[in-house]
Amino acid sequence: MIDKKKRFLIIGLGLLGGSYAMGLKKRGHIVSAIDINEASINYALEKGIIDEGAATADPNLISQADVIISGLYPKTIVGWISENQQYFKKNALITDVTGVKCSIIYKIQELLREDCEFIGSHPMAGKEVSGVQFADPSIFLPANLIITPTSKNTQAAIDFLYEFGIELRFNNICILTPEKHDEMIGYLSQLTHVIAVSLMNANDNSHLKEYTGDSFRDLTRIAKINENLWTELFLMNKDVLVNEITAFVDEINDFKQKLMAEDVDGMKQKFIQSTKRRKYFDK
Amino acid sequence: MIDKKKRFLIIGLGLLGGSYAMGLKKRGHIVSAIDINEASINYALEKGIIDEGAATADPNLISQADVIISGLYPKTIVGWISENQQYFKKNALITDVTGVKCSIIYKIQELLREDCEFIGSHPMAGKEVSGVQFADPSIFLPANLIITPTSKNTQAAIDFLYEFGIELRFNNICILTPEKHDEMIGYLSQLTHVIAVSLMNANDNSHLKEYTGDSFRDLTRIAKINENLWTELFLMNKDVLVNEITAFVDEINDFKQKLMAEDVDGMKQKFIQSTKRRKYFDK
Repeated sequence: MIDKKKRFLIIGLGLLGGSYAMGLKKRGHIVSAIDINEASINYALEKGIIDEGAATADPNLISQADVIISGLYPKTIVGWISENQQYFKKNALITDVTGVKCSIIYKIQELLREDCEFIGSHPMAGKEVSGVQFADPSIFLPANLIITPTSKNTQAAIDFLYEFGIELRFNNICILTPEKHDEMIGYLSQLTHVIAVSLMNANDNSHLKEYTGDSFRDLTRIAKINENLWTELFLMNKDVLVNEITAFVDEINDFKQKLMAEDVDGMKQKFIQSTKRRKYFDK
Repeated sequence: MIDKKKRFLIIGLGLLGGSYAMGLKKRGHIVSAIDINEASINYALEKGIIDEGAATADPNLISQADVIISGLYPKTIVGWISENQQYFKKNALITDVTGVKCSIIYKIQELLREDCEFIGSHPMAGKEVSGVQFADPSIFLPANLIITPTSKNTQAAIDFLYEFGIELRFNNICILTPEKHDEMIGYLSQLTHVIAVSLMNANDNSHLKEYTGDSFRDLTRIAKINENLWTELFLMNKDVLVNEITAFVDEINDFKQKLMAEDVDGMKQKFIQSTKRRKYFDK
């Protein structure tokens, strides 16, 4: 269990940051937050989601924090830490929620003060909406927390994040290198989003609404997408994602060739393989 | 309401045929069935799903039917009607459940006796399992029934199928030409299945199971697929489906180009368009 005296600070109080704050408060922790949107801070204070808050990088709030969790956009986090680490408490532990790892972790660990520690983590949770007003710690219940340590991290920091994941009631907590994380996320998450977006965009399909079944709805749900966040995430994992798209396009083109050639056995083999593989993913 | 004296005959008593039989019996109709699998007929008789049944094309059963519904595989239906129409009752109405229309309807209407009528229809319902033991008329509750008349069909036949759809409690009943049906199904259903299958096959992904979230599961659910049925369906709609795959691959390659070129605005435009289009499909 995490020591109740540890003070948490959330930077960027959106859906994930807000959900973390609520979950931590529920477990008896002291939580403060900084967000440039003053309305988010006021809302969170009013609803009791946080104990203290500020709309600027308040040195006083920052210096009290034992654990700092960045809920900032991927491109913003490195700059924020660089500018504000002067206020960090000695031995502060910093983590994040970012969906890509390599392009962030190594930069931060390079620039961070020697007496503080940054360890990457990625809560694979979310909703189709954003903002602290939609915060809800139950989004973690079915989700994975992925911890992505490097050789610079201590076992104590890994253990702490593990305990953190248990207190937040994540369904599963696992440890991956930043590289393996980005490869996995490129296939399981980023490629699937590219596919859903491209399927919606491939056809001016609004007239097809009344014929639509659940398969199509399930497959395209994630085509509703935050264009600012995902553009950053994709560019920060560009090489991996380009390779994943290429492998997928090769595979679908191979299927098209078999269909054009009326290669019945070849098509059946594809279906048998996908059925077998997909069964393995059943819950 | 459909006249209770009309006798229904289901040819091919699988999941859909069985669900039709159960729904019709529930509404007080007399339903018989023919299926080459004797176990399916015995099961259905035992469970009261049908009133009469046979494992061969029994001329007596066929000649009593006012309405014949084929639940046969796409490649089998034309031959079955050709061989057995000699037993059809005068003025019998025949329909089907096939997921492709053009390649079947025109052949049947060409060869069918002048005193009978075939009108195509497609219940867009199903499960991941097959067989009469999984039959369940509630699969029609959220589903579309698409009626696909040609110039050879009478208004009376269209009206009858409309009433039939209402009695079976379909969520929505609509009328499309066979050509429009096949184009719609090529995009909304067949292309989505090709995508799910290709995504599963693009990566030897079994080691990724523990990191998998709901988006990936939703997108790949239909990668579990009956290889015999879908190979037939795809080949019977080959030209449409090849065009849909090509359009989709062009779109995803265009996205890849924008990603490689780090074209931030171009990527955002894609996301904004897909979000707008997908919102229209929300229930």
